[in-house]
Amino acid sequence: YVQVRYNRLLETNPSLKSEHDKSIGDKTGFLIRRARLVFSGNVHERVFIYIQPDLASTPSGSSTIHFAQLRDAYFDLSLDKKKEFRLRVGQSKVPYGFENMQSSQNRLTLDRNDALNSAVPNERDLGVFFYWAPDKIRKRFSYLVSNGLKGSGDYGVFGLGIYNGQTANKPEANNNQHVVARFSYPLALKSGQIIEPGIQAYNGSYTVTPDQLSSNKIFGGTFNDRRVAGSLVVYPQPFGFQTEYNIGKGPQYDPETLSIQLKTLKGGYAQAMYLLKVKDQILIPFVKAQYYEGGKKTELDARYSKTYETEIGVEWQPIPAFELATQYTITNRTTKDGRALNNHQFGNLLRLQAQFNF
Amino acid sequence: YVQVRYNRLLETNPSLKSEHDKSIGDKTGFLIRRARLVFSGNVHERVFIYIQPDLASTPSGSSTIHFAQLRDAYFDLSLDKKKEFRLRVGQSKVPYGFENMQSSQNRLTLDRNDALNSAVPNERDLGVFFYWAPDKIRKRFSYLVSNGLKGSGDYGVFGLGIYNGQTANKPEANNNQHVVARFSYPLALKSGQIIEPGIQAYNGSYTVTPDQLSSNKIFGGTFNDRRVAGSLVVYPQPFGFQTEYNIGKGPQYDPETLSIQLKTLKGGYAQAMYLLKVKDQILIPFVKAQYYEGGKKTELDARYSKTYETEIGVEWQPIPAFELATQYTITNRTTKDGRALNNHQFGNLLRLQAQFNF
Amino acid sequence: YVQVRYNRLLETNPSLKSEHDKSIGDKTGFLIRRARLVFSGNVHERVFIYIQPDLASTPSGSSTIHFAQLRDAYFDLSLDKKKEFRLRVGQSKVPYGFENMQSSQNRLTLDRNDALNSAVPNERDLGVFFYWAPDKIRKRFSYLVSNGLKGSGDYGVFGLGIYNGQTANKPEANNNQHVVARFSYPLALKSGQIIEPGIQAYNGSYTVTPDQLSSNKIFGGTFNDRRVAGSLVVYPQPFGFQTEYNIGKGPQYDPETLSIQLKTLKGGYAQAMYLLKVKDQILIPFVKAQYYEGGKKTELDARYSKTYETEIGVEWQPIPAFELATQYTITNRTTKDGRALNNHQFGNLLRLQAQFNF
Repeated sequence: YVQVRYNRLLETNPSLKSEHDKSIGDKTGFLIRRARLVFSGNVHERVFIYIQPDLASTPSGSSTIHFAQLRDAYFDLSLDKKKEFRLRVGQSKVPYGFENMQSSQNRLTLDRNDALNSAVPNERDLGVFFYWAPDKIRKRFSYLVSNGLKGSGDYGVFGLGIYNGQTANKPEANNNQHVVARFSYPLALKSGQIIEPGIQAYNGSYTVTPDQLSSNKIFGGTFNDRRVAGSLVVYPQPFGFQTEYNIGKGPQYDPETLSIQLKTLKGGYAQAMYLLKVKDQILIPFVKAQYYEGGKKTELDARYSKTYETEIGVEWQPIPAFELATQYTITNRTTKDGRALNNHQFGNLLRLQAQFNF
Repeated sequence: YVQVRYNRLLETNPSLKSEHDKSIGDKTGFLIRRARLVFSGNVHERVFIYIQPDLASTPSGSSTIHFAQLRDAYFDLSLDKKKEFRLRVGQSKVPYGFENMQSSQNRLTLDRNDALNSAVPNERDLGVFFYWAPDKIRKRFSYLVSNGLKGSGDYGVFGLGIYNGQTANKPEANNNQHVVARFSYPLALKSGQIIEPGIQAYNGSYTVTPDQLSSNKIFGGTFNDRRVAGSLVVYPQPFGFQTEYNIGKGPQYDPETLSIQLKTLKGGYAQAMYLLKVKDQILIPFVKAQYYEGGKKTELDARYSKTYETEIGVEWQPIPAFELATQYTITNRTTKDGRALNNHQFGNLLRLQAQFNF
Repeated sequence: YVQVRYNRLLETNPSLKSEHDKSIGDKTGFLIRRARLVFSGNVHERVFIYIQPDLASTPSGSSTIHFAQLRDAYFDLSLDKKKEFRLRVGQSKVPYGFENMQSSQNRLTLDRNDALNSAVPNERDLGVFFYWAPDKIRKRFSYLVSNGLKGSGDYGVFGLGIYNGQTANKPEANNNQHVVARFSYPLALKSGQIIEPGIQAYNGSYTVTPDQLSSNKIFGGTFNDRRVAGSLVVYPQPFGFQTEYNIGKGPQYDPETLSIQLKTLKGGYAQAMYLLKVKDQILIPFVKAQYYEGGKKTELDARYSKTYETEIGVEWQPIPAFELATQYTITNRTTKDGRALNNHQFGNLLRLQAQFNF
């Protein structure tokens, strides 16, 4: 699928920037946010491969854009005939957070929430993951995606993984592996409504590498990185509700000592949506409020970040191949790093996204 | 398709270089000029996707080559059932100039003319384009390509676009969008001959970015960037003729003030060719003369460039999957930028290209 | 195919590093060593194309990884109907050494031997190659791969090539082309056993480019680069044996004069293996000993390198789509360059690789 965005409408503060979307703010325009091709298939009754490059990536240090970079490159090795027990080897999504698992193709808001996404920016890492789900629940996970209910796909009822921990497309930088575990179960009520509570946690060591530092006066190094999160999803049949919250510890820029320290972090979001079918067309209005306060480990000096954001929008799908999403964003962000000790920005903007599915 | 080149035969001046082809001149050899794969198709009766990465691209700042970078990533959204009205969203060719629209797979000379190509190097940009052509003319555009008459493909009888303006695979660098309009009509004479006159123009702001500057004594900044061009194509049935000319204004290095100034530019080309069918083989001898004087906005310091060039060559297509092109180039180029205040090079060379179509 | 590795088991010396595999040694973890997609086919009865990007490549100077870069992009143009005489144009393997020709998918040890691979790191270059093999022998080359006998594929009984010589994905840096010739014949004995002796040699000029130098006190420049090698392969039916050795000259860091000099180099390897079929599963234990002393032209300051290494391992293929290889490596490496004048490392480690074939 491909997503093309324009974010400059009704913009009240051009200094407002976002790490999620480089086309928010001053001196920006149209952006190809994602351009992804999937090569996948069963190469054996027990082996499923999935290779997904993104064609809108930029090598670090390059001023030219739109290079092809891996998102996923993994293999599911089924341990039993019914494929209830699987080992996933390679670069794939780390099972932490419902919205992180959900494809951007299915997500309503243009960007993920800061609170849980800051745990695994790009959502992926390199390692070995074990997933288990009963056949019946695997079918339910599949149904939640194929019927347009904005499911996460099948990351098991139970998932357990060991991975590098420096996030996707970054080389390992320490001698420690991250460990993650997740439990999530989609309950089908008698009314037909499906509700999915989930819980997940990870622990490991993250290394703030020299290329992340604003100057040679700040030191990186290896920090403990651990979080625990709860999730609750009520699928939109037709009214839906979704909330997640996490707490933890990790590296964070401290403006008082001008250094990176191990600090606590917390935050989450709540979202309501309503799925409306008008003839063959689908219309989903939504509202989401999010909050996060803590470090962003992969950013400059493990930047301190405090975010309050409200998004009100609607996704319109006139034909299955094409979606138009528009959202009005009211945002209030404070960041602190070695380059900008206290950068507080408040502003509103209207954002547009055209998405083509294939 | 893939193009492999060797340019060092009968070379009279190894200091002669070209921005179009990095394998011209001293210390060069074989070159993969283009290696392109196309992923395209109708994903819905109203939606056509086209994704074309090039596998012979280099990230800026990298000494290793042959990375995959997007050329095209767009979607045609048809507004009517006959697909006469289309919106094209994403990165695609900017409708400015016939030769710019023509695929390199179909072009006779190894490189495009400087005069019109300097308007949109790489021919593409990111934005939204509207195209209109009557069904009958859409079929004619298609016929001109599929019958080997070296057509441009279908960029509408009328085209109108809004785009970033920093050229393909570069992020937007100002708050202004470029606007382009084009009108081009392939007239079928009673004799069967097809003649296509065209006119096009664009206007916008181009920002000379810091990574384009030769030193910190030269300042970039945002400049007006506008041009108007006329085109005339007589398709080779069997004798063909093609000419284009444009004038405009844009950023240009000025060696007197050692700064970049807004200056006028002008130039064009004329080309004659003859399509010869010998049994199943095709042979097309051609001659082209081109002239350009003006700035090259995307190059070092928006380099001043004056080019006189004559190309005499022949394209030989023994089988549809394979073409061999050879051309003798007589060139006279003067460039001026902060690194070389007056670089005048004259020389001849014989160039070879093997092209594989798939 | 995709290969995922973990190399940190039973590691005795974390300072031990390898140019072949960046996940050996301190501060490393899981690694995607190769992720390759092949686009190939006959686009005409006389034209075969082969395009293979690798999705686990890193642009020089980038701290982010997993970008798509070309490995192969070539075309076979058959000169006769039986395809006994072929011209291969583009970037492809340089016919020098049996193990270099053998795909990593088929090789038993996790990395190639230093002695012959240092002649053409990445095994490929850009140029034109001529291959000849009788139809009967072409079928035998094919049989040796498809029947799991770990053949090299068809690089002709006789091969002759002209190529840039700076190795794959590097631009040409001098005015000289490399020339290579190879002769290799798979003899079928009456017993059914197949034995393939081979001989190969190349000559050219290699330029040590500025980006390869450790400081501006060391000078690069253009050096003669030539080698000759002998090969002998006894295919595993079920017992196999394989040995290669080469001598030559090339650029090499000299710690006495702190400069790069033209020096001699020599080295080779011997390997024994046994192919065991247990029901539908395949098990191949192997042992390999290798030695090399000489320069590594593409590395920092054309680094001096002396390697003694023994590898003992087993490849297990429970299903055709999945292979697990494990090897215990005993290694003794001395390297000398401008940054580390005498770096001597000795150590053992256990390496694991999961490979998925598709």
